[in-house]
Amino acid sequence: MVRTVHGGDIYSKYDIGHNRRLIDFSANINPLGLPEGVKKAIFENIGQFSNYPDPVCRELAEKIALHENVPQDYIICGNGAADIIYRIAGALKPGNTLVTAPSFSEYEEAVRLEGGGIKYHYLSEARNFLVGRDILKALTPDIRLVFLCNPNNPTGKLTEKETVLELAGRCRDNNCTLVVDECFMDFLDDPHKYSVSDCLESFENVIVLKAFTKIYAMAGIRLGYALCSCKELLERLKISGQPWGVSAVAQICGVAALDEHAYISRTKKLVRRNREYLLQELDKLGYKVFDSAANYILFKTENRNLHKELLKYGILARSCNNYAGLDEKYIRVAVKLEQDNQYLIGCLQELEAARGK
Amino acid sequence: MVRTVHGGDIYSKYDIGHNRRLIDFSANINPLGLPEGVKKAIFENIGQFSNYPDPVCRELAEKIALHENVPQDYIICGNGAADIIYRIAGALKPGNTLVTAPSFSEYEEAVRLEGGGIKYHYLSEARNFLVGRDILKALTPDIRLVFLCNPNNPTGKLTEKETVLELAGRCRDNNCTLVVDECFMDFLDDPHKYSVSDCLESFENVIVLKAFTKIYAMAGIRLGYALCSCKELLERLKISGQPWGVSAVAQICGVAALDEHAYISRTKKLVRRNREYLLQELDKLGYKVFDSAANYILFKTENRNLHKELLKYGILARSCNNYAGLDEKYIRVAVKLEQDNQYLIGCLQELEAARGK
Repeated sequence: MVRTVHGGDIYSKYDIGHNRRLIDFSANINPLGLPEGVKKAIFENIGQFSNYPDPVCRELAEKIALHENVPQDYIICGNGAADIIYRIAGALKPGNTLVTAPSFSEYEEAVRLEGGGIKYHYLSEARNFLVGRDILKALTPDIRLVFLCNPNNPTGKLTEKETVLELAGRCRDNNCTLVVDECFMDFLDDPHKYSVSDCLESFENVIVLKAFTKIYAMAGIRLGYALCSCKELLERLKISGQPWGVSAVAQICGVAALDEHAYISRTKKLVRRNREYLLQELDKLGYKVFDSAANYILFKTENRNLHKELLKYGILARSCNNYAGLDEKYIRVAVKLEQDNQYLIGCLQELEAARGK
Repeated sequence: MVRTVHGGDIYSKYDIGHNRRLIDFSANINPLGLPEGVKKAIFENIGQFSNYPDPVCRELAEKIALHENVPQDYIICGNGAADIIYRIAGALKPGNTLVTAPSFSEYEEAVRLEGGGIKYHYLSEARNFLVGRDILKALTPDIRLVFLCNPNNPTGKLTEKETVLELAGRCRDNNCTLVVDECFMDFLDDPHKYSVSDCLESFENVIVLKAFTKIYAMAGIRLGYALCSCKELLERLKISGQPWGVSAVAQICGVAALDEHAYISRTKKLVRRNREYLLQELDKLGYKVFDSAANYILFKTENRNLHKELLKYGILARSCNNYAGLDEKYIRVAVKLEQDNQYLIGCLQELEAARGK
């Protein structure tokens, strides 16, 4: 078994052009970088990093509860959302699990580790990879766990709240847990229109996953959380792994991040504007471009080597060759700062011009 | 199932005396606090904390390899040593597991989570809780995994290298994995006399656990590692959990910590001197004191409430009531800075004087 390769691997040696720096379009991180308030919290609290972290993240959970408008005992924090995905698989040992194809591959990695089987619900490119009500048909009685990523990774596509809730209800009837991964939801202007975090009281079988990693650019600090109204399930997630999974650094940064309201407004504006630019320019270049609600864009090229050709310019893009349901014709790029986005487009224009000759 | 309570819980509300601050003797962390070089590394590299960490910790592993004098491919890093303990249990799903009683309780928590059974090898107080060759008798053919903590927690007692190697050989014959937890070994003046990290080539079934958590006071940053010569076993540990378990913060701090040679010398001197002081004073107070090779001391009192009485002075000590083989008569205290140690002894003197009246 070999580990899936993900975006964000800026540590490998790449054959990039002379004198070029690596620009990472392969990881979907807020291009504004760490909020100033988070940096300040690190500087001011460095003396506390010697202490064991609070295993139950009390101060952080209290603040998340206010932020998400849910009771504090709905919350579990993790060493990134990925930690919680593995805790879910470990706690539920779920047997057959339904995931969409394509979607984030760690769901199936975690389930397979526990000996579970994977059933794919293939999303149709002809329907723009949208998750529709036909997912209900895929929910056969043997399915014990469903992962739904909303907006989906790598497509950036949203699933309607009604569809998610209908799926949640059917899962409940089937004694099946539904994990709704909303890690990119906070990049939306209207997350409440799509998030099901306000419906958890009615669905004890639903877990909503969230992360600080992307929206607060804390990928290297590692912090995620989950919301769930089922106390027993949360207790099982807590003991499904070490007690000190969430570092003191992450807890302190998380508390500070939740005060960064202006940063979030700036992020949303920036991502919207730059996403618009990238969508237009990628379309002009003749690629098939999939509109996105998130801070990344999926597009399709007939050039299976485009990903490698971009590397010569120092651009690390995410080839989708290891996503179930996709191949190397599909590329995902993050929405970054204006200058970086322009550089990406400029490089693509140069490559396409050279091919056109 | 309820989570075991450990030392280091400075986040709970305690009924401590008016105007007193909490002094934590319950967690065994280097009292010097974070090394200056580690603090500097945090300040200088804060811009990198936005990036996903390197899943395979290349730069850090390279430096650990030099530090430990082992090949780089013997190394796996973890989100604290506890992360690796859970990965071992998850990867091996070991069935019956042998642990000493007392010892660090996360070994058995991790094994039980995977449905494994626990067999205790009870250490005799009459023999000062030493692990001797009689542990070999406990190694029945059904045992697939053994955890041996050296020096042991909470006793501070060392097991002779010969005994560990004999156990390793017997385990190898039995198709059994031996985990030697040497997380406190670096507090010794002569770790090489006891560590088996130089014998790994001969024992593919042995995993040596190490941590930055204690010796570099990085408990809140979370960083541990394991050494093992079996590539296949290391690969299984790597996929037994999320790819980004070790934060970028931890990796950067770990690289900086390994340059802190003067800090380590100061630590060893400080711990030796202050441990000597505490051993003497605790003995004078009439407790049964167990000599220790580590940065903590186990002692026994007939007063089952001593732990609670210390709390009134703001002193958080580790009651051993939830260690298998011990009870609340046993208390573990960390070796801290001179002033704190004197305060502890002063409080104990006051308590004992009041009882003597």
